[in-house]
Amino acid sequence: MATETQRSTGRRRNPATRATILATAFDVVAELGYAGLTIEKVAARAGVGKQTIYRWWPNKGALVLDAVLERTAGSGPEGADGAPAELPDTGDLEADLIAVLVATVAEFADPDFDRALRGLTAAIIEDAELAGAYRERLDGPMRELKKRRLRRAQEVGQLDPDVDLDLAVDLVFAPVAQRWTERSGDLTPDGARAVVRHALRGLAAR
Amino acid sequence: MATETQRSTGRRRNPATRATILATAFDVVAELGYAGLTIEKVAARAGVGKQTIYRWWPNKGALVLDAVLERTAGSGPEGADGAPAELPDTGDLEADLIAVLVATVAEFADPDFDRALRGLTAAIIEDAELAGAYRERLDGPMRELKKRRLRRAQEVGQLDPDVDLDLAVDLVFAPVAQRWTERSGDLTPDGARAVVRHALRGLAAR
Repeated sequence: MATETQRSTGRRRNPATRATILATAFDVVAELGYAGLTIEKVAARAGVGKQTIYRWWPNKGALVLDAVLERTAGSGPEGADGAPAELPDTGDLEADLIAVLVATVAEFADPDFDRALRGLTAAIIEDAELAGAYRERLDGPMRELKKRRLRRAQEVGQLDPDVDLDLAVDLVFAPVAQRWTERSGDLTPDGARAVVRHALRGLAAR
Repeated sequence: MATETQRSTGRRRNPATRATILATAFDVVAELGYAGLTIEKVAARAGVGKQTIYRWWPNKGALVLDAVLERTAGSGPEGADGAPAELPDTGDLEADLIAVLVATVAEFADPDFDRALRGLTAAIIEDAELAGAYRERLDGPMRELKKRRLRRAQEVGQLDPDVDLDLAVDLVFAPVAQRWTERSGDLTPDGARAVVRHALRGLAAR
């Protein structure tokens, strides 16, 4: 009975097949963009049937979200086991946030990652349901880590104790993200440093 | 000869036909999103031939950009003649920026405008050429107005004289724009006020 269940679960979620599909979906969206990605193309390149993909992902938005999540797992502030880790905390808030934001700028400079994340972002802009899944599974956990780091800074008197932490996260991280989204200016480590310095000045305890 | 030219120009750019096409394109992208908009649908609803649209706009990205530009002309900080006007300048920088950002929040709360701008934004995220046109014709002129207002504040000692004005624009305006893009939180007039207050504290002359 236990063996039956295991075999059935194995058929539904073969880890190697899942990894192949997600890596292929990442490559396809990096190459063709979100509009150019179809389940058919991913299935053909991954060497699986369309129904295998549809059994695990209801639509291409869900597939691309998982593909980006899979690629970023381990590259961000997460432990090797995939569990979310903390943001750096050396006691120097400015240096710690600069380290995170400079790493973000470096990620955007990777052409494949840039295009895949553009595909996902374009999709969530128009799809409120996918935006909810993105918030729940990717942006939300990252935002919690950022807020936890900022809360510790509040506790030791480095930040205005009255500032809303979601606003604080947006003030530090949105300028770089928005510049990337709209391609409205250069993204450089020096620019990221300047954003953190001015944002923290605006959030400092008075 | 002049009459010939006028008639020819009239055929190429009949203002009423142009306005009808742009208003229809705005409605279609507001209803169906960017992915759902086709030149065929816009032509059918506007009662014109597809070739009429293609003669004036090379692709649907260019059409949607013009449709959003047409709708925002006059609603933003532009004169009645369509020429860009200045941002408010009462001498109270915080109040002036709050007025602009609260108006932005109100625009996002209009469902048709929200969906049309989502369509355009989704398109420019993946299309570098369209992003260039957007920067040149919509975001760039607005950014210049914002920088001009902030430069006057620098000149009277209200802002750090060394701060890069593009960074200053991003610090004030990106938090609300990014929250809208990713639907990562509520957009309220009070939230907009708090963003301006903290951003200006971070940009103040020391």
